[in-house]
Amino acid sequence: MKKILLVISGLAMLSLANAQRADSLVIRRLFTEVLTNGKCYPTLEHLCKNIGGRLSGSPQAQEAVNYTAQQMYQFGFDTVYLQGVLVPHWVRGDKETGHFSVTGKQHRVRLCALGNSVATPDAGIKAQVVEVKSLDEVAKLGRERIAGKIVFYNRPMNPVHIHTGRAYGEAADQRGSGAIVAGAYGAVGVIVRSLTLAHDTFPHTGMMRYIDTVPMIPGCAISTIDADLLSAALAGKDSSIVEFYFKQNCRMLPDEISYNVIGELWGSKKRDEVVVIGGHLDSWDNGQGAHDDGAGVVQSMEALRLFKSLGIKPKRTLRCVLFMNEENGVRGGNRFADEAERSSDKIIAAIESDAGGYTPRGIHVDDSTALPRMQKWLPLLQPYGIEFIRRGWSGTDIGPLHRNGTVLLGYIPDSQRYFDIHHTAADTFDKINRRELELGAACMASVLWLISEYGVK
Amino acid sequence: MKKILLVISGLAMLSLANAQRADSLVIRRLFTEVLTNGKCYPTLEHLCKNIGGRLSGSPQAQEAVNYTAQQMYQFGFDTVYLQGVLVPHWVRGDKETGHFSVTGKQHRVRLCALGNSVATPDAGIKAQVVEVKSLDEVAKLGRERIAGKIVFYNRPMNPVHIHTGRAYGEAADQRGSGAIVAGAYGAVGVIVRSLTLAHDTFPHTGMMRYIDTVPMIPGCAISTIDADLLSAALAGKDSSIVEFYFKQNCRMLPDEISYNVIGELWGSKKRDEVVVIGGHLDSWDNGQGAHDDGAGVVQSMEALRLFKSLGIKPKRTLRCVLFMNEENGVRGGNRFADEAERSSDKIIAAIESDAGGYTPRGIHVDDSTALPRMQKWLPLLQPYGIEFIRRGWSGTDIGPLHRNGTVLLGYIPDSQRYFDIHHTAADTFDKINRRELELGAACMASVLWLISEYGVK
Repeated sequence: MKKILLVISGLAMLSLANAQRADSLVIRRLFTEVLTNGKCYPTLEHLCKNIGGRLSGSPQAQEAVNYTAQQMYQFGFDTVYLQGVLVPHWVRGDKETGHFSVTGKQHRVRLCALGNSVATPDAGIKAQVVEVKSLDEVAKLGRERIAGKIVFYNRPMNPVHIHTGRAYGEAADQRGSGAIVAGAYGAVGVIVRSLTLAHDTFPHTGMMRYIDTVPMIPGCAISTIDADLLSAALAGKDSSIVEFYFKQNCRMLPDEISYNVIGELWGSKKRDEVVVIGGHLDSWDNGQGAHDDGAGVVQSMEALRLFKSLGIKPKRTLRCVLFMNEENGVRGGNRFADEAERSSDKIIAAIESDAGGYTPRGIHVDDSTALPRMQKWLPLLQPYGIEFIRRGWSGTDIGPLHRNGTVLLGYIPDSQRYFDIHHTAADTFDKINRRELELGAACMASVLWLISEYGVK
Repeated sequence: MKKILLVISGLAMLSLANAQRADSLVIRRLFTEVLTNGKCYPTLEHLCKNIGGRLSGSPQAQEAVNYTAQQMYQFGFDTVYLQGVLVPHWVRGDKETGHFSVTGKQHRVRLCALGNSVATPDAGIKAQVVEVKSLDEVAKLGRERIAGKIVFYNRPMNPVHIHTGRAYGEAADQRGSGAIVAGAYGAVGVIVRSLTLAHDTFPHTGMMRYIDTVPMIPGCAISTIDADLLSAALAGKDSSIVEFYFKQNCRMLPDEISYNVIGELWGSKKRDEVVVIGGHLDSWDNGQGAHDDGAGVVQSMEALRLFKSLGIKPKRTLRCVLFMNEENGVRGGNRFADEAERSSDKIIAAIESDAGGYTPRGIHVDDSTALPRMQKWLPLLQPYGIEFIRRGWSGTDIGPLHRNGTVLLGYIPDSQRYFDIHHTAADTFDKINRRELELGAACMASVLWLISEYGVK
């Protein structure tokens, strides 16, 4: 009896070792294919250079829908379809202008409207400036000090955090909610220090919000160099006569129909169990949306293409989703989750790439039950520079799937450069390193493979 | 007795935990200082933009010696000195030109002389081309097929290796020894495919060697795009009449006096035990030597500056060495090791940064006895994105210290982008990311701290 048990346990171990060896060979093939025959770099080049910035509702966003769906067909996916979704249609309008003046002397400011902002009056807004470091500070200053002024949110991102996303998260309330709080106390506009650790002249756009009960006041971002100059002017002896002027004619148009672009490779054994991989197809209008999130888009398509071109057939269905409207509404992510809830398919896991196309560092998992099992996969990924699988943030578009019990994962590249160009005119194709982009695609494909083979729990 | 042992072991554990806590606080301070008040980025900016490429023996190299020594004084190091060393003085001369012609039609080629190469005759060299993939292939083809020809080494770097340094190492024999082998079989010149994984128009220079017993024939590197075009021409139907022409008037001048620049912070307890940190001050002449190895130079200076400015006094002496002549002779590294052998000081360890100023990934250690002990330090470094301490290559300049029993370490940043710009006109300051550079400096400073506190064995 003991002997039999030993043999069985021996066979089990042997079978485990064989499985690991087989997995490691599949992963090796995925990386070799992407590094020698990868298609994500030229696909991204087209998306960036021939289409460019593709904000929800824009002609470029529609062009990006058409192009990526076309590519999915060409890659030979088993099915390709568009999932309709009504998206907000915000337009920037004319180039924004602004300056501050100290006792009449003007300093031009590099600025841009925040996404979803209302316009200024045609003549622009000119007012004195109140500099604050937080939303709380506005509330403390109160209506008496705020009414009629422009509130200048100037709390920098904290450079001490090693992962820059943490610094971004800590500072982003100024941009997202600054106009609500300032508007509640009677401010006429808000200026936000650009959310970046770089000290340069690029203004960084990004979404701001309004609520129904507070007057909608216009908001803009100014470059960090201009933020420091303005702050110094306000600290100077003539601070009482510093005035800020800005003019923008951005506006929200009626909702437009747009689409999530979806392609699938059907599972060979469990076709109704689905693993989602995705990024978002929309981008801000001021750059080319190269790292945010053209990279995630082409990596997600590439992950499926790798399996197809290598003739590897995963057990479960792989579904590539290019979400629309992450930047200013997350309508695509919500629509996708709604449909998933109604479907008889079971989305067991989803992974998103929306942190740039930089060199792979690790994988985040949002589910503490699935995590320990997935961490056992780490030795298979470490030879490719993937150093951790740990609990953490996954992605904005897949977030709504959480309520369906889907295990959510985030692809985590190196974070040092991302916010230097995030939401700026500098987020362009020339900032992409081909190998870094390709390694990320193969990293995600490897995770897809393991989930598809072994499930999540 | 048992009780006493338990108490002692308990105290020992407590003391270990306290030491780790103290170390983690020191490391936190090093990272905070560099990220909030770092000086390595502006120092590198001066080195790149105001001084520029600084090949051994050039006026720029001398200027770099003066500037960095001056900076070390300003940083308040305990001592600064220059260690004289005779270096080779190779000059590129006029801009190289070259083309290949197929049945008389000329295609201009982006090329540059390899470092240490002899000139062509004044009229240039024109000859038929033999394309090979290895040194062995030249030997197999033999004198009959090689004599009078230009040998074209065209084995690409292997893109499948995840660490690009490995691909470089595997391909570099073509550049280093190609002219020796081709010259031995009567070739009149060599062309080398640039050592890079990028597909672009930059030629990559780098050192080539000669030996006394073989005629010295000129060598040049051509861009990867041109290498592919030339290869296609040679594979075409007119391949028998493809001719290559190049002209370069580079030459070796008499040796020049130059210097290793050295600064120290003296140890508070064991002043005669020394930990070396360094990079190389010379660079190729065609770019600014930003990543290779301006980054290593300023990171090494910064590591000592961090201790000085924070008022942290390590037990052992920290010696920052900016080596001269890594690129085409390693005279500085050899000179330093010779002096170290004669000195009563004991250099227990040395760490070099010469793989670019990119985001930190890990630490290499060349010594299997010291390695397990150092690997216990990893948990202190992981919060900063340093993911491994493993056995591996350290650095060319510190290599000669091996014979003295010094434990050698290499600072290992992310490798994906390095060879795209290595030894080209594109190795310029704008390729440097401030935070990546700074994190590297603090990473090395942290390792210095631990070695200084605990020794190596």
